[in-house]
Amino acid sequence: MSRETDDLTELDRKLPIEAEEDLEDLALGEDYALNPEFVSDVVDALDRGDAERLRELLGALHPADVADLMGFLSADAREELVPHLDPETLAEILSELDTEIREEVLEHVPSATLAKAIGEMESDDAADVVDDLEADKRAQVLAAMPEIERATIEATLAYEDETAGRLMQREVVAAPQFWTVGQAIDHFRKEVDDLPELFFDVYVVDPSYKPVGAVPVSQLLRSARGVPLAQIMEPVTEIPVDMDQEEVAYIFDKYHLISAPVVEPGGRLVGQITVDDIVGVIQEEGEEDILALAGVSDAGRDAGVWGIVRSRLPWLLVNTVTAALAASVIGAFEAQIQKLAILAALTPIVSALGGNAGTQTLAVAVRALASRELSAFNAIRTVGREMAVGLANGTVLAVLTGAATYLMFHDLRLSVAFGLSMIITLFVAGLAGAVVPLALERMGRDPAVSSSVFVTFVTDFTGFFAFLGLAALILL
Amino acid sequence: MSRETDDLTELDRKLPIEAEEDLEDLALGEDYALNPEFVSDVVDALDRGDAERLRELLGALHPADVADLMGFLSADAREELVPHLDPETLAEILSELDTEIREEVLEHVPSATLAKAIGEMESDDAADVVDDLEADKRAQVLAAMPEIERATIEATLAYEDETAGRLMQREVVAAPQFWTVGQAIDHFRKEVDDLPELFFDVYVVDPSYKPVGAVPVSQLLRSARGVPLAQIMEPVTEIPVDMDQEEVAYIFDKYHLISAPVVEPGGRLVGQITVDDIVGVIQEEGEEDILALAGVSDAGRDAGVWGIVRSRLPWLLVNTVTAALAASVIGAFEAQIQKLAILAALTPIVSALGGNAGTQTLAVAVRALASRELSAFNAIRTVGREMAVGLANGTVLAVLTGAATYLMFHDLRLSVAFGLSMIITLFVAGLAGAVVPLALERMGRDPAVSSSVFVTFVTDFTGFFAFLGLAALILL
Repeated sequence: MSRETDDLTELDRKLPIEAEEDLEDLALGEDYALNPEFVSDVVDALDRGDAERLRELLGALHPADVADLMGFLSADAREELVPHLDPETLAEILSELDTEIREEVLEHVPSATLAKAIGEMESDDAADVVDDLEADKRAQVLAAMPEIERATIEATLAYEDETAGRLMQREVVAAPQFWTVGQAIDHFRKEVDDLPELFFDVYVVDPSYKPVGAVPVSQLLRSARGVPLAQIMEPVTEIPVDMDQEEVAYIFDKYHLISAPVVEPGGRLVGQITVDDIVGVIQEEGEEDILALAGVSDAGRDAGVWGIVRSRLPWLLVNTVTAALAASVIGAFEAQIQKLAILAALTPIVSALGGNAGTQTLAVAVRALASRELSAFNAIRTVGREMAVGLANGTVLAVLTGAATYLMFHDLRLSVAFGLSMIITLFVAGLAGAVVPLALERMGRDPAVSSSVFVTFVTDFTGFFAFLGLAALILL
Repeated sequence: MSRETDDLTELDRKLPIEAEEDLEDLALGEDYALNPEFVSDVVDALDRGDAERLRELLGALHPADVADLMGFLSADAREELVPHLDPETLAEILSELDTEIREEVLEHVPSATLAKAIGEMESDDAADVVDDLEADKRAQVLAAMPEIERATIEATLAYEDETAGRLMQREVVAAPQFWTVGQAIDHFRKEVDDLPELFFDVYVVDPSYKPVGAVPVSQLLRSARGVPLAQIMEPVTEIPVDMDQEEVAYIFDKYHLISAPVVEPGGRLVGQITVDDIVGVIQEEGEEDILALAGVSDAGRDAGVWGIVRSRLPWLLVNTVTAALAASVIGAFEAQIQKLAILAALTPIVSALGGNAGTQTLAVAVRALASRELSAFNAIRTVGREMAVGLANGTVLAVLTGAATYLMFHDLRLSVAFGLSMIITLFVAGLAGAVVPLALERMGRDPAVSSSVFVTFVTDFTGFFAFLGLAALILL
């Protein structure tokens, strides 16, 4: 690195470069996770009340890392840390914090400071933070804000959660269709304060403010000044303000969008969604699917034991009922088990494999539904294929486990009953694993939620009934 | 929409606007999925060999939708469709297709056409396609390409799969640090053909081509011409060329990056990664976790039954072994079951709830590890909390199921054994569900893969042993 750059960076960061680079190296490990030593340093500085050292340490961190740091601190330490953050940093950190930590932090920030910090945010982030405030504080904060900002936030909050309206920022760059590249650039240079900090597309609008196209900023830059915007604009994918965020994410991913205009029902441009908001949504939706399939909602990193228990117990109770129902099949064969107790050991093997096979099919189906690879076109083909796979896997397992059973117990009829029940159970597992999520999707439900309790019930019931029933028929 | 725009769009799209808009409406449903009627239209046109109608229908689609369409066609129909695509469209579609469909399509495209199509792609997409070609065809295609393009592709393929080197495009916009905004813009306008089609940041480099900062294009646009780039540049997060793509995605998500420079070990700028590539990676990694937790790899939408069987059978075989091992515990209590056959019906309920509770903890832990909310800082705290949750959930379930058991069988000792085993099993489930993924992560393994077979084995074994053991002690 040449001397010249050092000087500039130095000026820019307002801290001696060597000291700061050292701190940055200390702060983050190779995998961009916070170093334990750095966290201890922060805790020590907090304990000593060393404001200057704290400012130095926090100054070396990106706001996202400060948010991370707060996640690793105790609630008390967090409370002590907050007053050391300036409004600008606070604004950036608030958008990064986990919901439950944010709620706690928000309680400890004076309304006036908060109003100032929220004023620094993009409208979508600002609305999110205001939404998290308790009624009293929300009123205070809103009262302390300029009229226009308050109106913007209230308008954003009027849209439903997880829709395009909540995701969008109202700050957009629009230009009339008769402008040239030169006119646009000159206008932006003049009205610099009205522009969003960062933007990727200039939306070209008609006189009624409906988007008719978009000009990527890099396109604007490479085009001659005399070229009309209308000539270089590209078609836009308009996002209706009430579209679900999962749908928005799907469109961004499919068409590789960087930003998209959001429109009111009449078609008027009201805001834009940028891809960095979508990255968060995709993360979130993927996480939701993983958790939903396991029958658990995320109680959050800082939830207490009782919060977690509340988030998991309902699912366990539902499963108790279905497990007991399935087990009642075993109860019905009590007489047979009394005669041949080894049945009791073999039964769970059949149901376990049915459960595993059903879960495999279910996971594949849920993923394919989410990415729309599975739809009305190929639903029947998919179900048929899963039944065939179930039969094939079942047959392979039947031969192997049937042989193993014969070697252990030297009873051909027992191994035939075991093998046949394996085929039946894996066939039903393939069927249920594909049909249940498809049916839930058709009914307008999220296929990731509650599919697995149905599927497991079906595979348990089938496994128990097929094996014990066949055993009763063939053996006893 | 005013007349003026219509004319321009018309020119641009080379099709009467009304007809095309009708087709677009017909093509996509409200949820941006292809309409079945549209797909039938395409199939009909293919059957009739109506090239003009096909061109019209395909012209109404975004390349991503053509790729989607191909996924819903039969292999034969796809083969017929390919010759109707022009090289430019083909290039765009190839980057969108699922791997297995792409491999099949590539077989049917002549090498010369392919070489031309690949020449139209960004270097990362081009390398992906070449990587999918069979050895013979690859040699032909590479031979038909200009020397420079070939060298670029071979250089990209030299990086390992799923690393930054493979993800990056080599096309970057860089400027020396002593340039002003005006110099940069003038240069871009003059060298328009050397610029990538779309770019978001201009990387400022020192004389040895190391990135020292980045200027977002929108910043370039709003700044006065005389301002030096070095004055408005922002610090950059450099991505080492050998960084794993999951790591890259984490950094993009965390710091809300739109693009980032990729550097060689010496620090020299060799390419850039843009956020639209990252959206794909995040989707992919989330899907991989869902499938890995269920013990299945995605065989692909078009895989045959045997392909799917091969992707699932290994996991089922592993589970057969662990299920048999766990079930051997039941076998060891054969004598007790012979005496009291109802034990055989109650045992699977305990293990089922243990399995569910373990899966809940596992899913939360895997998710938290992926998002780095769970790390060395809070591992012990997390495991402790999960054990407490297991105890709490176990106690609630013990009371409820114990009472239910008593009501059904009027045997206090049986219900005590049942309840106690529920507490023990859910406690162990919480412990195993948290410790297993943490241990795998510590060992450098993917915690989503193979965690669940361990956890299920532990919960099954514990459930069987705790209930039957307690029953033997208390009851018999």
